[in-house]
Amino acid sequence: MAQKPSIPKGTRDFSPNEMARRNYIFDTVKRVFQIYGFQQIETPAMENLSTLMGKYGEEGDKLLFKILNSGDYLSGVDSGELVQQNSSKLTTKISEKGLRYDLTVPFARYVVQNQNDIVFPFRRFQIQPVWRADRPQKGRYREFYQCDVDIIGSDSLLNEVELIQIVDQIYCNLGLRVVVKINNRKILAGIAETIGEADRIIDITVAIDKLDKIGIEKVNEELLQRGVASEAIHKLQPIINLSGDNVEKLNQIETVIANSAIGVKGIAEMRLIFDYLASMKIEAEVELDLTLARGLNYYTGAIFEVKSKDVEIGSITGGGRYDDLTGIFGLSGVSGVGISFGADRIYDVMSQLDLFPKDAVSASRVMFVNFGDKEEKYCLPILATLRKEGISSEIYPDSDKMKKQMNYANRKGIKFVALAGESEIEKGMINLKNMESGEQVLVATDEMVVLLKGY
Amino acid sequence: MAQKPSIPKGTRDFSPNEMARRNYIFDTVKRVFQIYGFQQIETPAMENLSTLMGKYGEEGDKLLFKILNSGDYLSGVDSGELVQQNSSKLTTKISEKGLRYDLTVPFARYVVQNQNDIVFPFRRFQIQPVWRADRPQKGRYREFYQCDVDIIGSDSLLNEVELIQIVDQIYCNLGLRVVVKINNRKILAGIAETIGEADRIIDITVAIDKLDKIGIEKVNEELLQRGVASEAIHKLQPIINLSGDNVEKLNQIETVIANSAIGVKGIAEMRLIFDYLASMKIEAEVELDLTLARGLNYYTGAIFEVKSKDVEIGSITGGGRYDDLTGIFGLSGVSGVGISFGADRIYDVMSQLDLFPKDAVSASRVMFVNFGDKEEKYCLPILATLRKEGISSEIYPDSDKMKKQMNYANRKGIKFVALAGESEIEKGMINLKNMESGEQVLVATDEMVVLLKGY
Repeated sequence: MAQKPSIPKGTRDFSPNEMARRNYIFDTVKRVFQIYGFQQIETPAMENLSTLMGKYGEEGDKLLFKILNSGDYLSGVDSGELVQQNSSKLTTKISEKGLRYDLTVPFARYVVQNQNDIVFPFRRFQIQPVWRADRPQKGRYREFYQCDVDIIGSDSLLNEVELIQIVDQIYCNLGLRVVVKINNRKILAGIAETIGEADRIIDITVAIDKLDKIGIEKVNEELLQRGVASEAIHKLQPIINLSGDNVEKLNQIETVIANSAIGVKGIAEMRLIFDYLASMKIEAEVELDLTLARGLNYYTGAIFEVKSKDVEIGSITGGGRYDDLTGIFGLSGVSGVGISFGADRIYDVMSQLDLFPKDAVSASRVMFVNFGDKEEKYCLPILATLRKEGISSEIYPDSDKMKKQMNYANRKGIKFVALAGESEIEKGMINLKNMESGEQVLVATDEMVVLLKGY
Repeated sequence: MAQKPSIPKGTRDFSPNEMARRNYIFDTVKRVFQIYGFQQIETPAMENLSTLMGKYGEEGDKLLFKILNSGDYLSGVDSGELVQQNSSKLTTKISEKGLRYDLTVPFARYVVQNQNDIVFPFRRFQIQPVWRADRPQKGRYREFYQCDVDIIGSDSLLNEVELIQIVDQIYCNLGLRVVVKINNRKILAGIAETIGEADRIIDITVAIDKLDKIGIEKVNEELLQRGVASEAIHKLQPIINLSGDNVEKLNQIETVIANSAIGVKGIAEMRLIFDYLASMKIEAEVELDLTLARGLNYYTGAIFEVKSKDVEIGSITGGGRYDDLTGIFGLSGVSGVGISFGADRIYDVMSQLDLFPKDAVSASRVMFVNFGDKEEKYCLPILATLRKEGISSEIYPDSDKMKKQMNYANRKGIKFVALAGESEIEKGMINLKNMESGEQVLVATDEMVVLLKGY
């Protein structure tokens, strides 16, 4: 007797019902990307480790899934090295490929490799799984999907604005209430420059983030404890105490960082973005949030994060402007901006709020009960007609007991069952049963088509 | 200066144009699967090696991509073992996971693991990439997509028939002329039993396959050379010389294998399948082909292979009936039947025959030229209207030189360009240019919507 099989920890199977809901998200996201003129690409699951290593920090290198070289991979390894039992050293000898960790680095690699064929500004989207050898926990998986959308090869802030529009449209279509938090790395750099504490920008944003919870005095205390000079803290007061709408906030920040060239540039960028947004109908709340820093080093301008208003969960979308993403692969001076939608978190939020439409299921619309050879023969041409009309349908393949067949339809969530016994066949009709209401109607094939198309 | 990056051999990037065409195939296949009442599942890219090993023969085991364990994977390995430098032995210590090699074994694993939640007969489809460490060559890749459709948990031959209908419908929708070759493992077993040469069934099919090329005498000679007894060859004559339509062929075979219980069962199965098909409208040619054997050991009944009529390439779809696929994972007595569409070969055939519809591109339908701030402001609300109407559209993000912008639209294959300079803005109109014909029309927004929706 074989052992009951399992899958690697942190990975998942997706059942028909889960797939129907996941596809509902993917289709919605994809449709909006396309309406905005973005084109899909795909890259291989495996990349050369030389492409991936060193791009996600030391911790990231460890979280890459590495693929063992094929064949007699030890043949070229020095036996002296083997006895050292140094795993990380051996890895470089026995593994050349890894699974992609995100869609951003493969995208940068793609752009550099195909730069002569790409039409810039390049508007691309990509929806594929990524893999990380993270410790699995609730809501964190070792295989999960990212939906990335980027414009590369244009400095225009209109691109930032379009990404916010896309976020707004997608969450509007999904029925999710969100807040888009937006900040700018140049403003953060301007603050650091102004107070002469370039290295402490993270400390500062962390402390400011606690304002609502602990109040201004405690924030100032904490900044002092973290080693920020009291003169700097004094200068920071208007920024910590930020209030009003986005434009008012920008004005207050500007008073502080007016002498920083990069800071002023950041302010100007944000003003232009808010200007654009004011002229557009955006459902989502867009909020300037100075405490938003985002970890990734390659961001250089606007940064975004999107949070659900109704479910406490990390960000469900994030991204920003990068001025030199492709520089790591030898193509510099190409600026881009992009965001990434986390399909798995969106799924979790939508499940929790019960936002999936009732018809996001994949079962057939109608099942023909199989009463035996003669009845089956009667049903098959009708079944063919329905399918030709684009109505998903099936016939139970065996003439099993009625109860078993009805149970099958029930468990799968099939809405209609078609019954044709002797009396229906005589009349040239079908008995169509609505499985929810229990109602039955006697119909001809063409009536059946009309009826089922209405559902 | 960084080295120009590359991807692992045998893998591919897919450009926007390639993706549009690939999606055309996937969407067509998926749509037909759904109309026939099949539901999608997905399984993880990584499976435990215990799930994969031993399922594809010794050669298959070698072709699995194996994933290095995370962390200090050498720590538990005995140093005595390391110095042996035995790669395949070490693999079992440092790797527990592999990339899926096909969709069939993961499907069997899924069925066994989720047997309590699955509603049988289970009609599932699955469209995902698989990975094989094969030597890459023309048309053979290390990462490629399979589109599998199976019904498991039903013995009914109606399932075989529906799969042939699906094949027919899909290739009809794609515009590809195909021949469906069909055989039955039970008939092959019956032949082997009848002539007492159970081990030589492959030799026999290989020799018969050459009939058209070398003639009956040479086939008989070859059979003799391959060690088939002359008495057996004598008995085989009606089978080698098979002629007529499918039913006539079955009759001739039956005269030979009438004493083999399993052979007779195979004949009866095929009769029923051809009976069903005769009552249905099938575009594709369906041909009984005794030389069709298919390599995989798990097939036990009908087997299929589909070939293009117009391009010389291996089979583009194949499958068959298996009576005990899940037995390897401890669930026996579950019969199923399935087929697999090879998306990459279908792509190659369609490219060669130039069968992709002209509109299988993903570029925006219209691009607004960007003449500067004022003109941009005029265009943005119109752009928003088009997008709301579901028309994929974009505005060039920078006010670059006209020539550069037009060149962008041209290279991307964008069909319409919208121009709004001072005079158009004054009139509240847009100049819409058809990039193919060069024709320009002055239109209002609502006219533009109607015009673009017509294309």
